[in-house]
Amino acid sequence: MKSLGRHLLVDYYGCSSSVLNDPALLEKHLKAAVIKSGATIIESTFRTFEPYGVSGIIIIAESHFAIHTWPEYNFASIDFFTCGVDVDPNIANIYLKTVLSPVRTEIKEIARGIFNDYQFDNYHPSVKINKKKFI
Amino acid sequence: MKSLGRHLLVDYYGCSSSVLNDPALLEKHLKAAVIKSGATIIESTFRTFEPYGVSGIIIIAESHFAIHTWPEYNFASIDFFTCGVDVDPNIANIYLKTVLSPVRTEIKEIARGIFNDYQFDNYHPSVKINKKKFI
Repeated sequence: MKSLGRHLLVDYYGCSSSVLNDPALLEKHLKAAVIKSGATIIESTFRTFEPYGVSGIIIIAESHFAIHTWPEYNFASIDFFTCGVDVDPNIANIYLKTVLSPVRTEIKEIARGIFNDYQFDNYHPSVKINKKKFI
Repeated sequence: MKSLGRHLLVDYYGCSSSVLNDPALLEKHLKAAVIKSGATIIESTFRTFEPYGVSGIIIIAESHFAIHTWPEYNFASIDFFTCGVDVDPNIANIYLKTVLSPVRTEIKEIARGIFNDYQFDNYHPSVKINKKKFI
């Protein structure tokens, strides 16, 4: 069996509330995480909420990264969803942990789009799914 | 124990490839799914890839919805990530299934941000996390 995508769901507990309420800093770090993982940024959108919290999404050529923060709980949930063999979402997580310094982390990895080897290689074998090009 | 967010990861197999390669149609349906679930749209971004595929993200006041499609595999992966008690991601999934007509569906629900009842109610009890306001 093979999967089209790897989806890392990571929950960070015990982060600094001021960092979690700083959209510019979070965008800078999530963009750096994209680059370090080998992925390509297509579009980034970060929004701030009242009274607290940031939501940020980066569409990448290989799916998306997302972060939602609850500074009042010192908590952030992050998604690293990638496709293709050239990108490693774990590297993005290792980097982001270093800069957001959670006290505790919970990680789940979910395979998205599971096909048997024959299906995976023969649906449209001319398509290199890890070499999608943005238009 | 209580959780800040509900994250529904849904994989649709066996959808029409032409539907999965139509960003306008997918955006229309995902926006309708947001409304039906009781959530509020903040910003929507849909992108088309060459030779096939669409990535779409809608930031909602309650987290995000996302869709990535592989028309060549008749496959779509969808995320319905919501917070707050007034929004039901299952309603969004039921609607989207009706319009995308997958032959087979796989669903996982992941609780994001788990706290015990005391922590949940007492971190910052004045904050209604399901009534975030966009600024």
